[in-house]
Amino acid sequence: MKEITELQRHMLEKHRLDALVTMTPENITYVTGTSIPTQVTVRQREVIHIVTRDHEPEVIVVNIEEPIMRMQSWMPQDKITSYNEFTESPIALAVGILRKMGMEKRRIGIELSYLPTTDWQILRRELPEAEFVNADPIYEEMRLVKMPFEVERILEFGSRIEDVIYNAFASARAGMTEKDIYNMLVKGFNEIKGDKLNMPVVASGERSIQLNGAPTDRVLRRGDLVRVDMMGIKNNYYCDCCRTAVVGEPDERQRNIYAQLVKCHDDAIAKIRPGISSMQVYNEFRTQFESCGFEPIAFLGHGLGLTLHEEPYLNPYKDTLLRENMVLCIEPIHCTETEGFQLENEILVTADGHKMITGTRHPYDHLPVIRAD
Amino acid sequence: MKEITELQRHMLEKHRLDALVTMTPENITYVTGTSIPTQVTVRQREVIHIVTRDHEPEVIVVNIEEPIMRMQSWMPQDKITSYNEFTESPIALAVGILRKMGMEKRRIGIELSYLPTTDWQILRRELPEAEFVNADPIYEEMRLVKMPFEVERILEFGSRIEDVIYNAFASARAGMTEKDIYNMLVKGFNEIKGDKLNMPVVASGERSIQLNGAPTDRVLRRGDLVRVDMMGIKNNYYCDCCRTAVVGEPDERQRNIYAQLVKCHDDAIAKIRPGISSMQVYNEFRTQFESCGFEPIAFLGHGLGLTLHEEPYLNPYKDTLLRENMVLCIEPIHCTETEGFQLENEILVTADGHKMITGTRHPYDHLPVIRAD
Repeated sequence: MKEITELQRHMLEKHRLDALVTMTPENITYVTGTSIPTQVTVRQREVIHIVTRDHEPEVIVVNIEEPIMRMQSWMPQDKITSYNEFTESPIALAVGILRKMGMEKRRIGIELSYLPTTDWQILRRELPEAEFVNADPIYEEMRLVKMPFEVERILEFGSRIEDVIYNAFASARAGMTEKDIYNMLVKGFNEIKGDKLNMPVVASGERSIQLNGAPTDRVLRRGDLVRVDMMGIKNNYYCDCCRTAVVGEPDERQRNIYAQLVKCHDDAIAKIRPGISSMQVYNEFRTQFESCGFEPIAFLGHGLGLTLHEEPYLNPYKDTLLRENMVLCIEPIHCTETEGFQLENEILVTADGHKMITGTRHPYDHLPVIRAD
Repeated sequence: MKEITELQRHMLEKHRLDALVTMTPENITYVTGTSIPTQVTVRQREVIHIVTRDHEPEVIVVNIEEPIMRMQSWMPQDKITSYNEFTESPIALAVGILRKMGMEKRRIGIELSYLPTTDWQILRRELPEAEFVNADPIYEEMRLVKMPFEVERILEFGSRIEDVIYNAFASARAGMTEKDIYNMLVKGFNEIKGDKLNMPVVASGERSIQLNGAPTDRVLRRGDLVRVDMMGIKNNYYCDCCRTAVVGEPDERQRNIYAQLVKCHDDAIAKIRPGISSMQVYNEFRTQFESCGFEPIAFLGHGLGLTLHEEPYLNPYKDTLLRENMVLCIEPIHCTETEGFQLENEILVTADGHKMITGTRHPYDHLPVIRAD
């Protein structure tokens, strides 16, 4: 896509780089427009994208996944090189392309937090006069504010994910298992044409304190909390929305805890607008959360896009001034010894404030109920 | 688990190493007995396991996932260290533990094909006198032959996955979409209590040539091939089984191609026994496959275990003598311009030959049919 190549070239200039080498699955998707499924599951199947100020982007992909790159990406057919994973080294091919592009003595940006050490050793040996610069912060900067096509995809998908959760709660009953709930979530997820449900969380009862608890055969009983966190991908972009339900009517204690969680959630969101400091939103949330007697985890929220967690985080460690077209997930969590309460919504930063992406179709001010009879 | 630590120490001795540092998701599961879901999706959440000849294993995990490590792994509670992903560096914590264990000037094995370059740079700077050795081949060697508990898990799960595919074919109809089939597969997968369906492949019609094609909204029509490849995890171990169905009755041409594919598949499997060369099995398969006018892909099969593809591969590049308790997937694939035919079964190498893990419950000698009416 032309806009992405232009943005890459703008970053090359800004960071005084001559080439940008891309290898992380998320940034491969960003720059090619497609994802290569086994890049993650079969790690040696590296995908490498190279662009310079003057040369058109080229990409290297394992031959088994070449049809996907050819059919689904926007890369021109003659800029796709494939390799045999058993006899050829993708990083050696990348060295060849960098040489062909005249980059032997140039400054090359590359994602060092991802680059395997074995590849690093080959790059140092084969291109000893090149200077390698960590491109992690460059991609972070590029992806911090979403482009219009990205916002559109996230809005469209995010606006539909809530129904999937509430429909599952409505069909669930005490006596079912966490995996039964998961089945319903998958069905709903496919009905809204999600591509991949990434990491299903259905955690009930004492398991509800496991933040990333995968569904088990645990049977739902009256009084259980059921935390459902839907993290999935459509058109390469994530949704991320969490609700906590209760089996049967919530008791007074559960109602009180949840009401306080909602208040902290709403008060934080009310502050979201361009120009506000992410750290300020976190710090004020933290003060309020602690005054409820709750202990916050290390962040209140995170950016969402091609990855599940990305900048800007709302935490006390790094300050970002929010800008229009950032996408945030706000997710206060409170765990007692035995119960985990969580509420998570997606928010778009707009020119004059913010817009809820999720949390618009079902009232979230009380705990949804799963029938106990 | 004591056996794993003992095996690690045996490898330390064999490879003249003093410590073994483990970071890949699959080997973290191997040495701790659990998997940490977001280690893959949120990459900075590194998990690091360290063992020496004399020190008990220790593990470093992000605080958000600490409950999972504490509840699900066999690591002693006092050997688990957690960190804040925003303020602490897991590799710096690992450096501290290596120092405490007296490893500053020792030979340390570490998986260099996975270790991020940023971590490598810290290790070199903080432990300049240590010698780092690539542990990738060490783990390959350790996991090549499965332990009895691993064989048991793979057998139990693998023996049930076939039904999931055939039940979906039996319920499917022309007019449904690939995603409808996927829904049925997910339901069946959960019924056999699978933990995670890793990378769903449902590829029909002209999409059937996409080897790792994820399900889309493409509608099944009479005459379509439908390739379903089930790759999932239960108790941390993979299953991997593929069948190709046809919508309506297969035509003569489809029948002929498939019959030849089955013959090549069966003839290759008939040779599997301890002591035979993996390369010989591949080469003989290749000759036979080419005599059918088919062009083989780069491998006929692969090992299966904690990862989807592992040694031993059956390919022309690396020779392994097969041994009892290796687990193989045999998967001949033939793609025409428009149709992809594939058959894949899991095989256990036994003391006196082999045993089919899949392919035992439904005859695979003809193309399963999806109803067209």
